[in-house]
Amino acid sequence: MSRSTRFLRACRREPVDCTPVWLMRQAGRYQPSYRALRERHSFLELCKNPDLASRVTVTAAEELGVDAAIIFSDILIPVEAMGAPLAITDEGPVLSAPVRDEAAVEALRVPEPARDLPFLLEAIRLTRERLAGEVPLIGFAGAPLTLASYLVEGGNSKTHSSLKELLFARPELARRLLDKLARAVSSVLLAQIEAGCDAVQLFDSWAGILSPRDYRTLALPPTRSILEAIAPTGVPRILFATGASTLLGAMGESGADVIGIDWRDDLGEARRRLGPGLAVQGNLEPACLFLDEVGLEARVRETLGSAGPEPGHIFNLGHGVLPRTDPARARFLVELVHRLTARGAAGEAGR
Amino acid sequence: MSRSTRFLRACRREPVDCTPVWLMRQAGRYQPSYRALRERHSFLELCKNPDLASRVTVTAAEELGVDAAIIFSDILIPVEAMGAPLAITDEGPVLSAPVRDEAAVEALRVPEPARDLPFLLEAIRLTRERLAGEVPLIGFAGAPLTLASYLVEGGNSKTHSSLKELLFARPELARRLLDKLARAVSSVLLAQIEAGCDAVQLFDSWAGILSPRDYRTLALPPTRSILEAIAPTGVPRILFATGASTLLGAMGESGADVIGIDWRDDLGEARRRLGPGLAVQGNLEPACLFLDEVGLEARVRETLGSAGPEPGHIFNLGHGVLPRTDPARARFLVELVHRLTARGAAGEAGR
Repeated sequence: MSRSTRFLRACRREPVDCTPVWLMRQAGRYQPSYRALRERHSFLELCKNPDLASRVTVTAAEELGVDAAIIFSDILIPVEAMGAPLAITDEGPVLSAPVRDEAAVEALRVPEPARDLPFLLEAIRLTRERLAGEVPLIGFAGAPLTLASYLVEGGNSKTHSSLKELLFARPELARRLLDKLARAVSSVLLAQIEAGCDAVQLFDSWAGILSPRDYRTLALPPTRSILEAIAPTGVPRILFATGASTLLGAMGESGADVIGIDWRDDLGEARRRLGPGLAVQGNLEPACLFLDEVGLEARVRETLGSAGPEPGHIFNLGHGVLPRTDPARARFLVELVHRLTARGAAGEAGR
Repeated sequence: MSRSTRFLRACRREPVDCTPVWLMRQAGRYQPSYRALRERHSFLELCKNPDLASRVTVTAAEELGVDAAIIFSDILIPVEAMGAPLAITDEGPVLSAPVRDEAAVEALRVPEPARDLPFLLEAIRLTRERLAGEVPLIGFAGAPLTLASYLVEGGNSKTHSSLKELLFARPELARRLLDKLARAVSSVLLAQIEAGCDAVQLFDSWAGILSPRDYRTLALPPTRSILEAIAPTGVPRILFATGASTLLGAMGESGADVIGIDWRDDLGEARRRLGPGLAVQGNLEPACLFLDEVGLEARVRETLGSAGPEPGHIFNLGHGVLPRTDPARARFLVELVHRLTARGAAGEAGR
């Protein structure tokens, strides 16, 4: 067994030679190679240039020695393809035409990926070639609620009050928006899988703004419809949300194969709540990469201990790599997880 | 029993004639009277003018018919008095000299409230006079972790990565900053109580960025030291944090008398986790005020049902009133809570 199969086997809760690991935002500003590219290209240029997007993807996986690559892109790329003008600034994304009424919802179109996102599919094909089967490739998209928040708020938001006003005061219109986003995301993920992705992750960054009651009513149905739409492909489906401690039960009913756990939940407790039919991914506090190697190892052992010995754990951070992380420390983390979890190795006893 | 005692009795878990209610951000942009004042005065001008701050405080309590007033101010006012230059923009607070090294931490001074925050204490004295004992007055401050985040990040932050870098890479310096903030907050709260506040609330808006493990090590000790410092005054102490579902157990050990529960937790479950020795405050999803009266009543009944019949519940939203809330709907909510919980009233059976 090797890097080529470990991640996919863990997604399916099959035994592995050691715990697979990859890092959310493993390609990003903390890497000198990435910063060098960004000096010459904007973020969106990188996303839309298949050669560059693919190089960023492959370089990150190679530099870290992780067990999966994830295609370099952004959850808002499909939203732009739906007709929403998008800019990425230092402060975050700006969608200059917030979607807040019926006409704006109607004007959004469900993209045809081959026509509207050819660069993304080409980047995936190129990446598959360059990875040469060494590690699997993860595709991804944003979940409908999260995409709706960006569309309705016009960017990041602290209170998400415009989105919440839509959800609570105009539930029918909100449902139409979420349904359209679900159809868009389904088609984009299916196209990514057809282009060569071996697994997909749905990011629901803002799911945690809803109580379990409202998440179940408003956000879970469109999420479930996406996960159902891609089920026939057989590729593992990961659902990740942040600040979603109270939502874990509902997320477990989404149809996902793997639930991504953020850094605030206990992995063992999350596994107990989710039951044995689901794999989990996570969940080291990203700031632990600011600790020295001894401190980091103690925290990694805690995370592994909490995950327990049962198959079906993919090691990851509980959120993306933070910008000022030392790349050497991130590499050390990957090696450490492999070493501590190698079957039969001394490290295993230490868990 | 009346509005003058209901809130304080509930804080002490004593029986009440009906459930007391107030709303976080009950003074704010959703009110025409507040918007009219803001056309002529900046936010900080309002905070620093005792007459205006007091009028805003009293008007909000009177317009809504709530059972407590909360002094109009901002959690960053004491931070400015520590020497950090503060501006409040439409996008949020800006602290133009982020505190990230030893010299910057040393330069912060623990304020002397009578000298450095006379406007705040005068606003409290004026408000007490104007309230004439009709409703109690709540003072407040930010908890050390939350204030540290603003100081270190220089404003709002999505990832709080600079704060986390300080906490994890330079724990000793972080502790010095948090300790100094704890001393500052203690002295400010003691002065507020001396000036006439009947209860105090500590807002830990960003506590939820930490896992329980890190919250206990880093954020809980300075929070506990504040709550201990004001214990001898005998005024009820409320601790409120957002996104803190996983932290409730630790918050229950803070020494607070009342724990504010955000809208994502189930109030009954929170009470079970906290045990019978603590009162709870909360926790209606603020966006429920966008529902019609029938929809809102159903949600209020759910919240009351979840809180249960035991004494020690203060009704509130699970976060601040959202800006586009209809003031009439907010008034309706307050009356509704009183009506549905009036002892012996028909409404009680409906819970």
